[in-house]
Amino acid sequence: MADSPAELRAAFRSGESGPTSGLAPGHAQANLLVVSTDWAYDVLLFAQRNRDACPVLDVTDAGSPGTPLAPGADLRTDLPRYRVWRDGRLADEPTDVTDVWRDDLVAFLVGCSFTFDTALTRAGLPWRYPGRNVSMYVTDQQCRAAGRVHGPLVVSMRPVPEASVDTAVRITTLMPASHGAPVHIGDPAELGIADVASPDFGERAMFEPGDVPMFWACGVTLQAAVMASRPEFAITHAPGHMFITDVHEQT
Amino acid sequence: MADSPAELRAAFRSGESGPTSGLAPGHAQANLLVVSTDWAYDVLLFAQRNRDACPVLDVTDAGSPGTPLAPGADLRTDLPRYRVWRDGRLADEPTDVTDVWRDDLVAFLVGCSFTFDTALTRAGLPWRYPGRNVSMYVTDQQCRAAGRVHGPLVVSMRPVPEASVDTAVRITTLMPASHGAPVHIGDPAELGIADVASPDFGERAMFEPGDVPMFWACGVTLQAAVMASRPEFAITHAPGHMFITDVHEQT
Repeated sequence: MADSPAELRAAFRSGESGPTSGLAPGHAQANLLVVSTDWAYDVLLFAQRNRDACPVLDVTDAGSPGTPLAPGADLRTDLPRYRVWRDGRLADEPTDVTDVWRDDLVAFLVGCSFTFDTALTRAGLPWRYPGRNVSMYVTDQQCRAAGRVHGPLVVSMRPVPEASVDTAVRITTLMPASHGAPVHIGDPAELGIADVASPDFGERAMFEPGDVPMFWACGVTLQAAVMASRPEFAITHAPGHMFITDVHEQT
Repeated sequence: MADSPAELRAAFRSGESGPTSGLAPGHAQANLLVVSTDWAYDVLLFAQRNRDACPVLDVTDAGSPGTPLAPGADLRTDLPRYRVWRDGRLADEPTDVTDVWRDDLVAFLVGCSFTFDTALTRAGLPWRYPGRNVSMYVTDQQCRAAGRVHGPLVVSMRPVPEASVDTAVRITTLMPASHGAPVHIGDPAELGIADVASPDFGERAMFEPGDVPMFWACGVTLQAAVMASRPEFAITHAPGHMFITDVHEQT
């Protein structure tokens, strides 16, 4: 598959689908959440109050499917797979949402930890989930609520060789738009995670001897909170099927 | 005057007033903007879209005069001076806004470059505006608009000895909540500023031979944009009379 963000988006627009981990290395990937204008303030405020989990990269004007993060892209067609939610329940998982798009919809694009995987790999860290989705967990920590939007912090986890933990901290701390520094290193129980081998979203990661679990705040936090607050209608990306932007990872 | 944020806020609450530059060194100072809930989404989105100028530190729940940035503080009384705006025009400059406070008001607290002055001074940079307000200018660069809120970028300027320019860049780049890296170094004309000795807000700075003007995005950008868009009612801090938080400068 072609490597440029524009080519990848064109392929998804024409119906191709699949997870985006490892694609378009060096470019920012983004979580998508679409709600009606009625919910937009609560969502934006929730993101602002929980910035580690929800670093906002862009918010569209109502009805507009375009974003300066990728000029020419169409947010209704250019993701590999979507989820459509009605009253907080999953209603459909299409590869195109043009038919359910409305003029009162606002799209939130939120940073994704897939973005820093490239930097970690370049720094020599082994990638413990090639061809898979990352492991994600609902923690026992509550986010700061905003109006109707509330929910727990969701984290992603990567097994990192003990000698590389400092490198991973140093690199990700400088990438706040992709969740920044880890929220926890070491004991999953500190976050209320009973079994690291049973993620709540995504797939089980492969641990090697000497690996330490490192946890980062995850954009699924926003999706989980909005679903918990049951708006009458919402669209998100399907887990792991992110929006690939033209923006470089450092931004 | 006492040095702790809580003591300073108590003094302002009891009627003392004056600019806050140089006070409570090491603690974050904040711009204040208060609008009705009707305007809150446009303001928050404008801030998100122009983050260098408007790094949001906190947004209160409607009607609440409290903030986690300073537990126990009251945003209606604890700033040294306020400005009350009606239809975009200055109506009053009181030291207390309790009498005009309403249950539908939302307060935005936005990072201020006074916060990084301490770090610059600690690094050995001379302070070119002791006991004064910093120089601020309206530039010819337009911010990205959000709904009804639009306006030009406003910047603050500090004269910096040429040998210390790199130090100032290095320090402020790591403080994004206080506007981060400078937006321009050197020629004021590049920002459309005709005469650096005639600031649009604040006072004229003292240049020494060999000083280079360094420009940072300024929180007054948000105030200027909201005033230009003429909400029926708004409250801000008076220029230079900031809210002193309990939060340390690095946050």
